[in-house]
Amino acid sequence: MSGRRLLLLAEQSFGPMSSKTANAAIRYIPEQVVAVVDSALAGQTAQQVLGFGGDIPVVGTLEEGLQRNPTVAVVGVAPSGGRLPQEWRALIGGSIAAGLDIFSGLHIFIGDDPEFSKLAREKNVQILDVRRPPPDLPVSTGLVRNLDATIFLAVGTDCNVGKMTAQLQIRDVMRKQGHRVGFAPTGQTGILVEGTGIAVDAVVADFIGGAAERVTIEAARDADMVLVEGQGSMVHPGYSGVTLGLTHGSMPHAFLLCGQPSRSTVKHNDWLPTPSLTDLIKLYEATMALIRPAPVIAVALNTFDLSDAAAREAIAAAEKETGLPATDPVRYDPAPLVDALVEFHNKRTAG
Amino acid sequence: MSGRRLLLLAEQSFGPMSSKTANAAIRYIPEQVVAVVDSALAGQTAQQVLGFGGDIPVVGTLEEGLQRNPTVAVVGVAPSGGRLPQEWRALIGGSIAAGLDIFSGLHIFIGDDPEFSKLAREKNVQILDVRRPPPDLPVSTGLVRNLDATIFLAVGTDCNVGKMTAQLQIRDVMRKQGHRVGFAPTGQTGILVEGTGIAVDAVVADFIGGAAERVTIEAARDADMVLVEGQGSMVHPGYSGVTLGLTHGSMPHAFLLCGQPSRSTVKHNDWLPTPSLTDLIKLYEATMALIRPAPVIAVALNTFDLSDAAAREAIAAAEKETGLPATDPVRYDPAPLVDALVEFHNKRTAG
Repeated sequence: MSGRRLLLLAEQSFGPMSSKTANAAIRYIPEQVVAVVDSALAGQTAQQVLGFGGDIPVVGTLEEGLQRNPTVAVVGVAPSGGRLPQEWRALIGGSIAAGLDIFSGLHIFIGDDPEFSKLAREKNVQILDVRRPPPDLPVSTGLVRNLDATIFLAVGTDCNVGKMTAQLQIRDVMRKQGHRVGFAPTGQTGILVEGTGIAVDAVVADFIGGAAERVTIEAARDADMVLVEGQGSMVHPGYSGVTLGLTHGSMPHAFLLCGQPSRSTVKHNDWLPTPSLTDLIKLYEATMALIRPAPVIAVALNTFDLSDAAAREAIAAAEKETGLPATDPVRYDPAPLVDALVEFHNKRTAG
Repeated sequence: MSGRRLLLLAEQSFGPMSSKTANAAIRYIPEQVVAVVDSALAGQTAQQVLGFGGDIPVVGTLEEGLQRNPTVAVVGVAPSGGRLPQEWRALIGGSIAAGLDIFSGLHIFIGDDPEFSKLAREKNVQILDVRRPPPDLPVSTGLVRNLDATIFLAVGTDCNVGKMTAQLQIRDVMRKQGHRVGFAPTGQTGILVEGTGIAVDAVVADFIGGAAERVTIEAARDADMVLVEGQGSMVHPGYSGVTLGLTHGSMPHAFLLCGQPSRSTVKHNDWLPTPSLTDLIKLYEATMALIRPAPVIAVALNTFDLSDAAAREAIAAAEKETGLPATDPVRYDPAPLVDALVEFHNKRTAG
């Protein structure tokens, strides 16, 4: 993976809340990113647009991006609508023509497009449609329970609250401390960062658990602790099935609950108030109670849209409400969360 | 639908616990069934093999079946392994060659087989691969909450405990009583019986809720009560994601809990004891509590493998444990369950 040089295609969509996959690449593997393509923001840096990312440049055209010798073009944002707009076709086609591999998280498979696949063969270029599930997934049957590793699953008060980011922050600190920790990617962004994994929301419904089981077992190789990338939320009417399937496939020993204090309703569901942390802790614990009881042991808050004072207040309130350690592991030191997980692991394995 | 004449292909698999789709057709639409093909049981009747189905004959060859002038061949049982065995290819190919439409619930799509699809075009025959999802499913967002109808979802202590059968028994009694009741099929068997629906376990995971939403809205047309076909179980590690997605997509006002008293462990998961009815009621109610609270209001038991005395004892025990009306709606009068649902509907709409 280390030889990759990534060109992030984010035309008309680069921004703190819009280009999730590009942003995660910039946060976690900045050394691999050569440029971002977005004609609307050309001339700025990632730092200026996102508040992190240093001097990674935003360029206005594919040609400018190609001058920086990328090896992979990353299509990390989904254009609205079911089809590829013409300008995106030009970006992808131009990238393949220039000999770049393609990494795509789109619902539409780039590799199934006759024009792109023909061009890719001619240029000997690989197209990785990361949402295309493996063909041989099983129905899960709790195999994960035989692993020695301690499994932690991030769950959310909602979707898109920063579950993956929280876990990667925790992972980085754990690695620095010398722990053997694996990350199990279950979505396109985690897969881009880690170079492996399965997008569990893209598999046929019967195999959600089987996909989760497989990535968890894979991540547990050479690891004492596994952080499973969370998806959706148990109260999101559109994604809860993925969340529960992921839970029962990965069978966590404990949960990390992630939330965003500024959200008052569930995403895409204005009619549905975001439940309290306390109610969500009860619900998540109930989903495992009859199978292999697992507690929520820490709370990660995403406070990017709050002032420092409001963020610290939200964290204190979460700690008071839940009796659990809480922090924003991006904005502040992730130590309280890391300590909670390591302590849980030590207690579990001491017995 | 009424003009259909069904030939049920159940080669080497016809039996009380093995040919679920064929059995449901025989129970609910026997007037449409002309014969069952299973060379191992040729010469017997459905009644002799299943204990119901009267004199529907089991024949040993496709040719014998064709003499009864079927219009549709139903492939209702999944041959083990990922590929179609040769004898099944011959049955399906022979059916198409004879001009029969094909109804298939296989994971492999018959219509994608070059030989079968070519033959089907030549014979002007329709192939319905019932597990092929509609191409335009949405992510669900709770639209169902705007329906006037009272929505009941069957849920289970496990998969394959008789959820669909219980609901169809209830539906039949309700219709006889003059109620306007809709059935929302979510699996291949329900789809065969009803002639419409979506197999929710066959859609891409992100769209489980969207599929459930669509079939529920469809079934609510011209109905005051909707019975949504249940799938899986909230404690089945392989299928729980489908169950929760179906729950949040259909947003039931109340649940019917279905169980099979003779099961002591979860299907395919010998390591996992079947939880008590009480624990499952708490879990199912918890999954809706933060969204739109819905109680479990009745218990349907599948006692086919118990003596009459043991069945009556199990029903009495379930009533005592849960404080809810319970019965086996196939073996005994479904009235206690019907009454509970109708009473709930009347109370809800009286307000």
